[in-house]
Amino acid sequence: MIIIGEKINGSIPSVGKAIAERDADFIRNLAKIQTDASAAFIDVCASVEVSVELETMKWLIDLVQEVTDTPISIDSPHARTCVEAIEFCRKPGLINSVSGERDKMEVVFPVIAATKWECAALLCDDTGIPKTADKRLEVFGKVLEKAEARGIASSRLHIDPLVEMLCTSEDGINMVVEVIKKIKKEYPAIHVTGGLSNVSFNLPARKLVNQAFTVLMMNAGMDSGILDPTNRDLMGMIYATEALLGQDEYCMEYIGAYREGLFGQKK
Amino acid sequence: MIIIGEKINGSIPSVGKAIAERDADFIRNLAKIQTDASAAFIDVCASVEVSVELETMKWLIDLVQEVTDTPISIDSPHARTCVEAIEFCRKPGLINSVSGERDKMEVVFPVIAATKWECAALLCDDTGIPKTADKRLEVFGKVLEKAEARGIASSRLHIDPLVEMLCTSEDGINMVVEVIKKIKKEYPAIHVTGGLSNVSFNLPARKLVNQAFTVLMMNAGMDSGILDPTNRDLMGMIYATEALLGQDEYCMEYIGAYREGLFGQKK
Repeated sequence: MIIIGEKINGSIPSVGKAIAERDADFIRNLAKIQTDASAAFIDVCASVEVSVELETMKWLIDLVQEVTDTPISIDSPHARTCVEAIEFCRKPGLINSVSGERDKMEVVFPVIAATKWECAALLCDDTGIPKTADKRLEVFGKVLEKAEARGIASSRLHIDPLVEMLCTSEDGINMVVEVIKKIKKEYPAIHVTGGLSNVSFNLPARKLVNQAFTVLMMNAGMDSGILDPTNRDLMGMIYATEALLGQDEYCMEYIGAYREGLFGQKK
Repeated sequence: MIIIGEKINGSIPSVGKAIAERDADFIRNLAKIQTDASAAFIDVCASVEVSVELETMKWLIDLVQEVTDTPISIDSPHARTCVEAIEFCRKPGLINSVSGERDKMEVVFPVIAATKWECAALLCDDTGIPKTADKRLEVFGKVLEKAEARGIASSRLHIDPLVEMLCTSEDGINMVVEVIKKIKKEYPAIHVTGGLSNVSFNLPARKLVNQAFTVLMMNAGMDSGILDPTNRDLMGMIYATEALLGQDEYCMEYIGAYREGLFGQKK
């Protein structure tokens, strides 16, 4: 599982406050604890007005790179910000994200084409989030076509099929599972990613829904996730699921992660 | 999910002690808390020497029936004890269990044939636990054949495919998942059951493995489980999984169970 650490996000109140007050230690600490918890990327989302977004991104990325070599996930709804922030990064990371919206891919793909940057792509387009599996697969087809046209290998794409709230769903997550299975069957090297907590919006005991959801999504083929790696129960559940799915012979990874202290009772 | 409450089992040290000391209140309380936690059956396993097993079963079953109308799951490795304990029960319950071992079915099936008793059946036989999916399905075929010959509908059977320890497995639980899917595809009315904690034997942070396992088994088709219904996180995970699998429109059951206090923070 490729862990994209989600904690440096200005829409989280404590982080928004740290950004507003330029509390460097607070940000550095978030980068450090996520690195220690085995994040593969540190997501950086400023969540500020677009006029000050790029300078805020630079401030955040610099701080992260002061304490860790873990690659950055540049997280912005603005494609222009995403590509301009690339120059702040010491090594290739992840653009988070493009979508089926035409101009996003046209801004991002040419810039990352000849690089090692990876890219998350949401299965929505200019008309919104499609309601059916077929329509989402259509958006996927367009994303893949544009990526291939630029020579971006499918292994550099993290497809986010977009899971909606469970509380308003009539068939649970069946549609999204169908989308994932079809994509992974045809393109085994592609990554499937997603946020792991939106699904439980408006429900009680959200943690349990999020954990069960993670297990089912991994079973469907999700191999990348935007999540809090310091959430020990969730991390343990991820390692357990890999072992149960036969991806961890004799539970060596599970036991190793436990011994490293990534989950289980704090020592 | 059909919950078979596992707490009245003499092999649990505190329960073994209560049985030895004939501590009636202790047993009554276990029956009551499992009923309150929505168990569909109260499993009763004496785990004593066979010479005193039947009288111990009678003592236990009488106590359970003093406090609840929830049907009994008569749990014994001895088929003879299972059928003799039927007469202690006020209403039909579950025989736990028969297996592919020839004489067990021959003792139990004729007795329950013309009743509403249900029956758990383990997919092992006189040669032990088969190593391959095909061999387990062969045992299943024999069980089904014997049940059908007695007119026992498949909906009265709870098949336990027997999950072995994850720590010694090379392919996780893939083989068992294959067995379950094949059985449920051909016989949708049959129940698939199992203990939910053996899988994590010898691993650290067992709770997380057990929970992820439960989610994956339910996804495969398990709809019955021998478990502790007072384990609130596990119960919440079960309700969450049903909603995620599309078996609980708009999460009404999930929200209802939460409001009843079956999971979430204790009030």
